[in-house]
Amino acid sequence: MELWYTEKQTEDFGITAKISETLYSEQTEFQQLDIIQTNQFGRMLVLDGCVMTTDLDEFVYHEMITHVALNTHPNPKKVLVVGGGDGGAIREIVKHASVEKAVLAEIDGGVIEHSKTYFPQIACELTGNPRVDVQVIDGIKHIHDHKGEYDVIMVDSTDPVGPAVGLFEKGFYQGIYDALKPDGILVAQTESPWFHKELISRVFKDLKSIFPITRLYTVSIPTYPSGLWSFTIASKKHDPLEVDASKIKDLDTKYYSADIHHSVFKLPKFVADLTRE
Amino acid sequence: MELWYTEKQTEDFGITAKISETLYSEQTEFQQLDIIQTNQFGRMLVLDGCVMTTDLDEFVYHEMITHVALNTHPNPKKVLVVGGGDGGAIREIVKHASVEKAVLAEIDGGVIEHSKTYFPQIACELTGNPRVDVQVIDGIKHIHDHKGEYDVIMVDSTDPVGPAVGLFEKGFYQGIYDALKPDGILVAQTESPWFHKELISRVFKDLKSIFPITRLYTVSIPTYPSGLWSFTIASKKHDPLEVDASKIKDLDTKYYSADIHHSVFKLPKFVADLTRE
Repeated sequence: MELWYTEKQTEDFGITAKISETLYSEQTEFQQLDIIQTNQFGRMLVLDGCVMTTDLDEFVYHEMITHVALNTHPNPKKVLVVGGGDGGAIREIVKHASVEKAVLAEIDGGVIEHSKTYFPQIACELTGNPRVDVQVIDGIKHIHDHKGEYDVIMVDSTDPVGPAVGLFEKGFYQGIYDALKPDGILVAQTESPWFHKELISRVFKDLKSIFPITRLYTVSIPTYPSGLWSFTIASKKHDPLEVDASKIKDLDTKYYSADIHHSVFKLPKFVADLTRE
Repeated sequence: MELWYTEKQTEDFGITAKISETLYSEQTEFQQLDIIQTNQFGRMLVLDGCVMTTDLDEFVYHEMITHVALNTHPNPKKVLVVGGGDGGAIREIVKHASVEKAVLAEIDGGVIEHSKTYFPQIACELTGNPRVDVQVIDGIKHIHDHKGEYDVIMVDSTDPVGPAVGLFEKGFYQGIYDALKPDGILVAQTESPWFHKELISRVFKDLKSIFPITRLYTVSIPTYPSGLWSFTIASKKHDPLEVDASKIKDLDTKYYSADIHHSVFKLPKFVADLTRE
């Protein structure tokens, strides 16, 4: 018997991956959580029927949601991840020696717990690191209670359905603005330039109305819809494009580099157009 | 009844797209040719069970196999496309005013014929343009008979199975070297950096042993395996990295731009590594 995990990424398109085993399944308080063993990508974390991360390609998302902003800020000390319960963003953040405190605000404790069990190489910094503060809490509440505290805030959310809907709203971005210090930086995952054009344009416009500097960048993630994924960075003072590439330190990465820091902002024309509408 | 086209892109991974209609199917002399109408991507050309091109994303492949090399060469007059029977590369080539003759050497006349019928916006320059010379011929034979004639040669092949196997061999690249003028440029599609690492490394090494300048670049194509696709450019004299971006003319493109010309060569670390092995 052959088992295949098939995910409808849109109404009309999907991916399918051969699996050897379902390792864990649970309806948590917030979402359906499944962990499967695939041949192509190793273990795969699936939330509400969408691939969140896999052994093979997790490094792209986790390096690229973190290092661009952390190398744009001249001295990031206090960093918040909203969502990101698998711990991959935290693992990358603590590679930066300047960071004194990396806070994880994940609404679903089940994601944290099962990532520790099934993705130990991703969740490795969620236990035993005194610089890491793991909180099972609604990120919206957390930012409301911590005004002016953070140097960098990362929105490492699921797709804008279910528990993450509020994490794509303008009011939430204003709350993040308020939770940042006067030279703070926000970065958020903002879906696929092929399949979610309206969302990208809307989020970009919303952030541009709040922050003085707003930039879109893209990366390759084969298990995400279309394989091309976007992040939006919004900053009160520091511009990612003005970073001196020669000063970016090597961080033991597989995707991010000083070259990549700048080149990811050079968008294909049809993607650049999304920031102009 | 719902019909879905499912393509195993590797042994363990695939894509699936909802279709409304199969428009044409034929076993040609060389390969199985199918044209289907999908909801997500519009019409899709499938050869031997692999997506070749779709209405939605064809512009990426066709702009990016052509404009990088054509803007690297200071005055491309005679250009050859090996394969590429859908005509998309030819459509982009004739946007360059310097080009006096664009030759298509496609082994399978069926691809040309049915592209004209079902993809008129892609095949639009295959009829009636005196600068275009369409030949139904084996590209390997064509380059053997035309030594020292071309400014730019593009290998717009299918995957390295079936009729295209010979188009990934070192002897073929040597043949292209011989068919190029003393400052000629080759560009070839070279598969996915996620799924075909060995092929990319091997082709890069082969080309580097023949040409003084060899470069790898990548683009986003959602219907190709992993969504990330590579091209390898090999040049006798002109370096794509030394092109003055301010001199690149606007060519009515949707992906390529002067910015993109340079940024596509800035590779993620795991991809750059493929050129160093």
